[in-house]
Amino acid sequence: MIIEINPVGTMDLLSQLEVDKLKQSSTSDLYRLYRNCSLAVLNVGSDTDDSAEIYDKFKDFDINVIPRERGVKLQLINPPSHALVDGEIITGIQELLFDVLRDILYTGVRLKELSNIDLAHPAHLTHYVFDILRNAGALQTHKDPNMIVCWGGHSIRSHEYQYTKDVGYEMGLRGLNICTGCGPGAMKGPMKGATIAHLKQRIKTGRYLGLTEPSIIAAEPPNPIVNELVILPDIEKRLEAFLRVAHGIVIFPGGVGTAEELLYILGIMLNSANQTLCLPIVLTGPSESQTYFEELDQFIRATLGEAATNLYTIIVDDPVAVAQHMKNYMSEVRANRRMTGDAYHFNWSLKIEPEFQQPFVPTHKNVAGLNLMLNQDTASLAANLRRTFSAIVAGNVKEEGIKEIQEHGPYKIHGDHSLMLMIDDLLKAFIKQGRMKLPGAVYKPCYQIVQD
Amino acid sequence: MIIEINPVGTMDLLSQLEVDKLKQSSTSDLYRLYRNCSLAVLNVGSDTDDSAEIYDKFKDFDINVIPRERGVKLQLINPPSHALVDGEIITGIQELLFDVLRDILYTGVRLKELSNIDLAHPAHLTHYVFDILRNAGALQTHKDPNMIVCWGGHSIRSHEYQYTKDVGYEMGLRGLNICTGCGPGAMKGPMKGATIAHLKQRIKTGRYLGLTEPSIIAAEPPNPIVNELVILPDIEKRLEAFLRVAHGIVIFPGGVGTAEELLYILGIMLNSANQTLCLPIVLTGPSESQTYFEELDQFIRATLGEAATNLYTIIVDDPVAVAQHMKNYMSEVRANRRMTGDAYHFNWSLKIEPEFQQPFVPTHKNVAGLNLMLNQDTASLAANLRRTFSAIVAGNVKEEGIKEIQEHGPYKIHGDHSLMLMIDDLLKAFIKQGRMKLPGAVYKPCYQIVQD
Amino acid sequence: MIIEINPVGTMDLLSQLEVDKLKQSSTSDLYRLYRNCSLAVLNVGSDTDDSAEIYDKFKDFDINVIPRERGVKLQLINPPSHALVDGEIITGIQELLFDVLRDILYTGVRLKELSNIDLAHPAHLTHYVFDILRNAGALQTHKDPNMIVCWGGHSIRSHEYQYTKDVGYEMGLRGLNICTGCGPGAMKGPMKGATIAHLKQRIKTGRYLGLTEPSIIAAEPPNPIVNELVILPDIEKRLEAFLRVAHGIVIFPGGVGTAEELLYILGIMLNSANQTLCLPIVLTGPSESQTYFEELDQFIRATLGEAATNLYTIIVDDPVAVAQHMKNYMSEVRANRRMTGDAYHFNWSLKIEPEFQQPFVPTHKNVAGLNLMLNQDTASLAANLRRTFSAIVAGNVKEEGIKEIQEHGPYKIHGDHSLMLMIDDLLKAFIKQGRMKLPGAVYKPCYQIVQD
Amino acid sequence: MIIEINPVGTMDLLSQLEVDKLKQSSTSDLYRLYRNCSLAVLNVGSDTDDSAEIYDKFKDFDINVIPRERGVKLQLINPPSHALVDGEIITGIQELLFDVLRDILYTGVRLKELSNIDLAHPAHLTHYVFDILRNAGALQTHKDPNMIVCWGGHSIRSHEYQYTKDVGYEMGLRGLNICTGCGPGAMKGPMKGATIAHLKQRIKTGRYLGLTEPSIIAAEPPNPIVNELVILPDIEKRLEAFLRVAHGIVIFPGGVGTAEELLYILGIMLNSANQTLCLPIVLTGPSESQTYFEELDQFIRATLGEAATNLYTIIVDDPVAVAQHMKNYMSEVRANRRMTGDAYHFNWSLKIEPEFQQPFVPTHKNVAGLNLMLNQDTASLAANLRRTFSAIVAGNVKEEGIKEIQEHGPYKIHGDHSLMLMIDDLLKAFIKQGRMKLPGAVYKPCYQIVQD
Repeated sequence: MIIEINPVGTMDLLSQLEVDKLKQSSTSDLYRLYRNCSLAVLNVGSDTDDSAEIYDKFKDFDINVIPRERGVKLQLINPPSHALVDGEIITGIQELLFDVLRDILYTGVRLKELSNIDLAHPAHLTHYVFDILRNAGALQTHKDPNMIVCWGGHSIRSHEYQYTKDVGYEMGLRGLNICTGCGPGAMKGPMKGATIAHLKQRIKTGRYLGLTEPSIIAAEPPNPIVNELVILPDIEKRLEAFLRVAHGIVIFPGGVGTAEELLYILGIMLNSANQTLCLPIVLTGPSESQTYFEELDQFIRATLGEAATNLYTIIVDDPVAVAQHMKNYMSEVRANRRMTGDAYHFNWSLKIEPEFQQPFVPTHKNVAGLNLMLNQDTASLAANLRRTFSAIVAGNVKEEGIKEIQEHGPYKIHGDHSLMLMIDDLLKAFIKQGRMKLPGAVYKPCYQIVQD
Repeated sequence: MIIEINPVGTMDLLSQLEVDKLKQSSTSDLYRLYRNCSLAVLNVGSDTDDSAEIYDKFKDFDINVIPRERGVKLQLINPPSHALVDGEIITGIQELLFDVLRDILYTGVRLKELSNIDLAHPAHLTHYVFDILRNAGALQTHKDPNMIVCWGGHSIRSHEYQYTKDVGYEMGLRGLNICTGCGPGAMKGPMKGATIAHLKQRIKTGRYLGLTEPSIIAAEPPNPIVNELVILPDIEKRLEAFLRVAHGIVIFPGGVGTAEELLYILGIMLNSANQTLCLPIVLTGPSESQTYFEELDQFIRATLGEAATNLYTIIVDDPVAVAQHMKNYMSEVRANRRMTGDAYHFNWSLKIEPEFQQPFVPTHKNVAGLNLMLNQDTASLAANLRRTFSAIVAGNVKEEGIKEIQEHGPYKIHGDHSLMLMIDDLLKAFIKQGRMKLPGAVYKPCYQIVQD
Repeated sequence: MIIEINPVGTMDLLSQLEVDKLKQSSTSDLYRLYRNCSLAVLNVGSDTDDSAEIYDKFKDFDINVIPRERGVKLQLINPPSHALVDGEIITGIQELLFDVLRDILYTGVRLKELSNIDLAHPAHLTHYVFDILRNAGALQTHKDPNMIVCWGGHSIRSHEYQYTKDVGYEMGLRGLNICTGCGPGAMKGPMKGATIAHLKQRIKTGRYLGLTEPSIIAAEPPNPIVNELVILPDIEKRLEAFLRVAHGIVIFPGGVGTAEELLYILGIMLNSANQTLCLPIVLTGPSESQTYFEELDQFIRATLGEAATNLYTIIVDDPVAVAQHMKNYMSEVRANRRMTGDAYHFNWSLKIEPEFQQPFVPTHKNVAGLNLMLNQDTASLAANLRRTFSAIVAGNVKEEGIKEIQEHGPYKIHGDHSLMLMIDDLLKAFIKQGRMKLPGAVYKPCYQIVQD
Repeated sequence: MIIEINPVGTMDLLSQLEVDKLKQSSTSDLYRLYRNCSLAVLNVGSDTDDSAEIYDKFKDFDINVIPRERGVKLQLINPPSHALVDGEIITGIQELLFDVLRDILYTGVRLKELSNIDLAHPAHLTHYVFDILRNAGALQTHKDPNMIVCWGGHSIRSHEYQYTKDVGYEMGLRGLNICTGCGPGAMKGPMKGATIAHLKQRIKTGRYLGLTEPSIIAAEPPNPIVNELVILPDIEKRLEAFLRVAHGIVIFPGGVGTAEELLYILGIMLNSANQTLCLPIVLTGPSESQTYFEELDQFIRATLGEAATNLYTIIVDDPVAVAQHMKNYMSEVRANRRMTGDAYHFNWSLKIEPEFQQPFVPTHKNVAGLNLMLNQDTASLAANLRRTFSAIVAGNVKEEGIKEIQEHGPYKIHGDHSLMLMIDDLLKAFIKQGRMKLPGAVYKPCYQIVQD
């Protein structure tokens, strides 16, 4: 089955050189990346977070870029049938497909050619993140601060999911927009809630911004409600993108990924250079989640100290309060940006140290080499804990991580004895609560706490 | 609590004469009608279909039209709090309020002044319905046929409600628009489903057209998803409006109101003058509704004959099939209109006899006078059955009908013995299935079958 | 040659009743009016102001309204060829044609049916003017005051024409919109200048509003630059419409029509009820026009007194100063409307006495009956002078007036001896300056000053 | 006098790195280029084509890019006063200023960093031209062919100017868009004519595309009617851009620049690889220009042969015929592109040999080295004649060329004797007709024909 689809936006404007580069690479890594991300987007609604299974199921799938008199077209060979309605692709998915083409071309072809961007240099790296977001049209000037980043698990229970919808609804009623990491669970709920609220408020320009990365897009495919999708090259750039565009952050219950995100933001906000910045952070969930947040709060207090816990507000079972908290903070965020002369659409002032910015490759050697002793400054500890959880996410759902685990067994995590106990407790709770993988699979840990 | 709101659309353009007329009428019927319809729209989300209860609960509510330099404003005194978010009215409700103002002014002030419109004349009456719809902007030329009218009960069970959402979703995916009578249940579900589908298809011009009447708007208030609301003066003009704008009709399970609608459309389509017209009609529900439709089908066959049952298709538990059926028929509807030279946006060719067009006032005398004998032509029988059910709807949820019943006791329905038995069975089934009133109230019949 | 054209705006939505009414009247006055106004619009670019000549030249022309599945169409039979480009009608003219249909139907069919509008009643008459403008979409709320009415001759010299373009250009650069009476000369120049300025300012919503009347539209056809055309039934309603929508008035050199307009505005502004209103009036022209304005100023001083001359500012040969004068006044107009609680889009507060509002039919008897003695209050004198000049305009270019003159000879104008001398001087100057008729025709006076 | 202006389009989205790069270069060539191009745009309406004079007159002018919370702003210090209206910049000029920023940044900063674009490689060079146009938003897919490139002199007489307006008007009436090289004369007339026609046709998306280069922008500044401006780095890329976006070419009377353009297009179209392409070329002017075109035609026949003269059509004094010729050809252009599978928005198929594509720097040595013998193939002769005329344009109005001439005296042009005579005749005619420089200056030739 072959389907040709028209581009959306400006992606119909490709030069022959660019099409050639993508074509030449049919057998290359770039093309494989492109094909797999496209497949992920087409495979929305799938009920597995196992990339390998998805890639295997659709091994007949292929995608080609072909030039036409009105611009290029995409040719889909054997696309997943639920992307289609009566043989025609759903427009939202069509848009996402061209978002994929745009970002893969941009990061894979055009930016690779930049001779004087040095990604080891913090300012260059931030410019790189900016450039990807700008090229994707995800930076909108002349808008007041209103972008709320929502983090939380892809595998959550139905009452938790309903709660994320309620929070999204209340935020939407107040004109706030939503940014998440794409995928199901806490990343879909707030968007769904906000869409209904935006409809009732007759807001036609509601933004449902999804920030993802190639290694996780298959496991957490963007729902077609996402009307802006950006694929960042890796988790560190994705996390930086979240923080640069956020005017507020809501953290719902989740697993290791959510913990990674929380440690990332806390580690950065603990930096004295960021003390005067204004970025409201709320941890929230339904009443059943109260103990979840108590445990997390306790872990943060024990590892990063009281100062870290002051950076966020915990609100239990009150979607209206969460939405009002965020809405009220927006004018403060605005005043803060004006005072510092910073842009509303990109938080340039936020200082991100290299330990949070440079990519961490989750090899066994790298994981083993992490300093997990308590006698280090809190920001460094946060950075290393972040990397630890990042590795577990990779081992759970990212292709590269899964391969590592298959080859070398679980990651060995070791460090300070009391810290190891705390990590162990937290992870066990995540497993018990079913937060590691989507329901239907028994979770086999990809890590091992080594207590010397 | 006083709130001032700006108009939407062209309703800011009122002449002083018009404002005066509405103001002068503060104690008049017109003003009372206007106030009550406005309250109904503000009271969305209420969980009762008892108008009196609503009007009593908000007796402090008031509404004024006041002139301002940029046009008129509405002043709301003590509006229901759930119409507001943090003290500001929800934009969708704001729009609906101005739809109310527009239609009440148009039918109550402007059209009353027309000296040479004679509502006893069929062509004038159709012109009147056309004029109201046109003034409301509800007639869109240059669009291909795609408006599906959905009928069904306001009090339905949750699996039925879910089914109406699924059908709306599948129709929305296929670019179809939805028109219902407003209110909860089967009138809300298809719109909700279609909104999500339209979002995924990036259709920003999706239409969710609600046609209501003053006497039922409080019991069945429009959800803010409704983005076009038209208030017709009475049920006969409302039913005519449904048929003139419909390109297809889907009938979900419902009670007497739904039965009234079905008899209305069948009675009209049985007219030989309408034989060449194309208007697909589908009766559909989840698998649990199979017997419901079997009973209804049997009733129609027994009363209006085989020919009447050929006018509709019953589809059980298959939302995709319903949507495809409608979508496929649209090109036939189009061809049919072109052939007859009729407009897409208003079905002028449809012949509606006076017995279906002239208002039936549900007094006890009028109900008692209905000819319910089987020895009449099927169209007349359909018309009289329609009036019978219409009276019961009024007695159930319309202010005027309820007052009648309170004063004079239940309507007495009598006629052909076997027909009385059939009607009795049907109504009892409706009661048993909870289709007469919203849950939470014990239904006390407003009618009595008199079997001579 | 037959051409079918699609409607623009909402004019595709006609009911069968309305089409019938227009059709039935094929031989009637209404249809003749409609046909002639349509022809006038199609005949743009013609170089005569002689209606009879135009109607005679295109006596083969005809126009029909025919229903179609996407709404009604217009069928043009033998339209003037310069309305077409390669056989297709120019879109601007197409729009104007539907403006004609809209207004003729509204004033000729719909408003005639209003039983309780009494045009002898000032408030009803103002409502009627409002209603026509509203129905035409010519009233825009939510816009700050910026509509400048420009009056002046249809027959002016080329340096005067260039000057009106320059003034329009400078006003357009400052975001002001233009309203004129349609036709060539001073009614076209300001619009042309403003269009170029709006283009440079990237203003895509520039308004070029033409207010005309059936009896003059053929002699002064709207240029397709006019993007909003409204046909008022007679000169009095047209003059009222000008004043109700104006936020400022610029008067260029002109003939009797311009004098009529000046006397109208001065007579009304002299009313003590209008003393606190803010409406800037500028008389302006190139340096060659200095004596023209001196004469006019002198005439006003001698007839209406010093107070009347204080109502306007004369600016000679300085388009920038004119534009700045108007622009600067706009905030004052705005403040004035806010203070009085009056609408920006329609000057309800302006008091117009019946002597200015009631139609004056230019029969010989009526003209002869005019009180042109100096011993009356200035407003009444202004009203009667206005009627005098109005009659001469009719005798010059309006069909009805020309017929009167053909049958009964020139109007006899008599009154106070010194006033007669002044009028005679003024009119002779107009004749000498070629302001009575378009060049190419020798002007034969339609009036006679009778000096007792 | 300091003015801050907001960006238009996406130019408010600059990264800190980019702003730094432009700032660091305050004393650099890049900054000087940026400042001068900005000044040229602000200096619209100036009546000189002497860049040096302009730069000298406004030596106090400066421009800065400064970051703000809603994006960057431009700070103008002492801008030319006629770019302002009452202290505010004209919006059209504001847009052009940001077009300048966009292109200078793109070609000066971003593309310079591309390591693997090799401008010696034809495909890369074409990609580069494409990239600049794409980045400027000047390539619009999904539009049918309708872009007419108009070439002609910047110094033409008033009846010629009127004729270019008339042709633009007639093309605009037929929905065609205009692309010129910016500046006065034949580059402004067609745009002005088309704007009025587009207004009458209610075309709100009319395109007035200006393609210029840094070295000529001051002498030929874009009029604010230009609503899309692209600055190409040099004349060769600019000529390539013209040809890639053109669907038809109209050549009005002009001087050496126009001759250069004609030789460029003929040289390329003579290439057998381009024989099947469809690109209508019309030479046109008022009746007074008849001899001009006869001379030019004769020169082409004598140098490039009969085949070259078959590539164009000469139409004298008939704007409607020119417009109809172009309009009729558009469907053929469309069919041709579909057949070859080429894009409508960029003529990829057109083969441009290196001799036409590689920059020619007009030094005395390079000019002296040109092969101007008749015994070479016509395409090469066209290329060398093109370079010859290009050098004279530079010597006349481009900064670099003028400097060359000031330092080394006139260019020495030598070659085949009969060819030299023909060139001499042509150039003398241009001088005599005042086509070399704007009126008011005595033309001092920058070249010398050396006849060995």
